[in-house]
Amino acid sequence: VSERGPTEWFTGEVWLDEIAVPPPPSRLRVHSVHFTPGARTCWHRHPLGQVLHVTEGSGVVQRSGGPVEQIRAGDSVWIEPDEWHWHGAGPRTFMTHLAVQEAADDGTEAERGEHVNDTDYQA
Amino acid sequence: VSERGPTEWFTGEVWLDEIAVPPPPSRLRVHSVHFTPGARTCWHRHPLGQVLHVTEGSGVVQRSGGPVEQIRAGDSVWIEPDEWHWHGAGPRTFMTHLAVQEAADDGTEAERGEHVNDTDYQA
Repeated sequence: VSERGPTEWFTGEVWLDEIAVPPPPSRLRVHSVHFTPGARTCWHRHPLGQVLHVTEGSGVVQRSGGPVEQIRAGDSVWIEPDEWHWHGAGPRTFMTHLAVQEAADDGTEAERGEHVNDTDYQA
Repeated sequence: VSERGPTEWFTGEVWLDEIAVPPPPSRLRVHSVHFTPGARTCWHRHPLGQVLHVTEGSGVVQRSGGPVEQIRAGDSVWIEPDEWHWHGAGPRTFMTHLAVQEAADDGTEAERGEHVNDTDYQA
């Protein structure tokens, strides 16, 4: 089942497939995230980090203080624990990636920051 | 970098890409595994379970006591902690899947059992 990404978390049209959210003692959270052109997450961070693996198309990722980096099918990205970042499609290209993270002991998977405005997105 | 899957773990020709093996406190282990036709893992189990997500082609998975099940691109499989299982390509089809597991506190990711012989593979 593909569910629309909530507007608190995303700018533009995004569709989420839950791949696996197994019960404890596993703390895995795996989703496939489909970003339509121009769509992106807000700034956010994960208590135990995150792996992104692009399965289709091309898009962008930015870490706090770093440049907007291009990513494309086959690329993998490791985001450090508590590192603020965002990711999304290219302005004119669709992107699908797997997002793999671990929930903290209290269940927290992510903390949300500001949306990425058009100026910062197009940088 | 793609590395050949070791013969203790696999039957046939398999190539492994390390996607992410981040440092603690993460315990994630993410690999992309390319199985040529007929290739498969040995029987094995994971202390905290495993997610398989097929990104290309079609193949098979079997859990101990269960049937050999077909899986294909887009399919996801959750293997329970300590559940003996094996997976691989179809007899005539290539398969690539992402394998996502968590290392136990002692670093153990998997325990290895018998190889899957041709009779059991073709069942």
